[in-house]
Amino acid sequence: MGTTQLESVPEPKYWHLKTVLSEALDSEFSVGEILPNERDLAARFGVARATLRQALEQLELEGRLQRRRGVGTTVAPPRVGVAVGTEQQAWPGGAGDVWQAVDCTPAAPPAAVAAALETGPDDTVYTVRRSRVSQGQPVAAELLYVPESSVPELSAIDAPSGPARARAVLRELQRLELEGRDSAVELGSARADDARELDRLPGAPVLVVTTRFLADGRTAALSVATYRADTCRLTFGDSGGVEIHQGPERQAS
Amino acid sequence: MGTTQLESVPEPKYWHLKTVLSEALDSEFSVGEILPNERDLAARFGVARATLRQALEQLELEGRLQRRRGVGTTVAPPRVGVAVGTEQQAWPGGAGDVWQAVDCTPAAPPAAVAAALETGPDDTVYTVRRSRVSQGQPVAAELLYVPESSVPELSAIDAPSGPARARAVLRELQRLELEGRDSAVELGSARADDARELDRLPGAPVLVVTTRFLADGRTAALSVATYRADTCRLTFGDSGGVEIHQGPERQAS
Repeated sequence: MGTTQLESVPEPKYWHLKTVLSEALDSEFSVGEILPNERDLAARFGVARATLRQALEQLELEGRLQRRRGVGTTVAPPRVGVAVGTEQQAWPGGAGDVWQAVDCTPAAPPAAVAAALETGPDDTVYTVRRSRVSQGQPVAAELLYVPESSVPELSAIDAPSGPARARAVLRELQRLELEGRDSAVELGSARADDARELDRLPGAPVLVVTTRFLADGRTAALSVATYRADTCRLTFGDSGGVEIHQGPERQAS
Repeated sequence: MGTTQLESVPEPKYWHLKTVLSEALDSEFSVGEILPNERDLAARFGVARATLRQALEQLELEGRLQRRRGVGTTVAPPRVGVAVGTEQQAWPGGAGDVWQAVDCTPAAPPAAVAAALETGPDDTVYTVRRSRVSQGQPVAAELLYVPESSVPELSAIDAPSGPARARAVLRELQRLELEGRDSAVELGSARADDARELDRLPGAPVLVVTTRFLADGRTAALSVATYRADTCRLTFGDSGGVEIHQGPERQAS
């Protein structure tokens, strides 16, 4: 790394430092390498520790760095493109579905979910928990809410609890004709249970994808999927991932 | 707000505090209202200021709070659903396009963009800057990269600089037959110029949507759009927005 002194730069110091650090990551470090400690880095660039920390936070937001307890700050690999099929007009659990069913519980859903599903307080809603792994890493956790009215014959099925029950719910869902689906993506923070599953701390930034499945003129199921924002790039469309990152070249433009 | 003491709770304190605060926001505060200062809030919940700040940061990530310099911390309105049309197979600037052309400069694009466009170092690439406003608020800033080879007749057009030139580029683009488009969404931090346009500080969390437009068997244009992550929910699909938020009910599930 250079020894650029940043004292005289008019833009926010942490911002300029971030650009300089980002270039250093490209030229001097390889993926997975551990960065020098904060004190050494701050000294090297002639900035206060607080400024350094702000710059490191930025780089973490952008997916360039990973900070892990007990390991330190490492250079992150490029984000993984994870397809979020809006065009694929299929029910969850159909052929080619990449999600793994983990569990299924009948429980009162959160109020916002109940409102979207138009279920009453006494209606049973199955909550299917699923997880998604990409390249050996957990990338997303999903809660799929299915009102009993969407799977009326489920009660006749002698499905045990756990994954088998979850798969039974998904199988029953296929009986309905899917009329459409729409999704929304927003920034969120990982709940404690999702964080555990995603190997993150509670509150880590996540991308929350909410998908509504429409059948019989109503919302027949609702999925709330939580993707790791540090490692994932969500891809939409038919021709695969987009290989553009918000890398240092973009920052310097 | 209650006076719950949080000292004895086993989960991370800021996490529990966040849930408590979130419930208080629902029951006691209205949108736009200014929260009490940090010292008073910390005292009320019996937590250290650092813990309180962590909880406030979480709520900001989730779009529940807004922190603005000179104003303080206010209760945020619900996020605005902003349609990001993956299904709408149209060029930028076509009928119904909600973006406003701001400027157009011929410049060497960032290296990652040049690689995606397969342009050489001496090829001209037009950078069209556009902005998007929703409900009177700036919600997104876009850089649309168009190589000269995609708009070969542009040089014959006597377009002045600025928005008129930008519109000329978009008009020329319509001559190509669009074969497909795909998009990716990822978390990023606002560059200084985007931040200014979006009325945010540099480094604020943003959702970066990269869209590739395909024509003549190659990438004919590339858009990098930066959406405010605090106020936007990006919607995909044909039936409008999804009215589910990652609200406190979800947190408590």
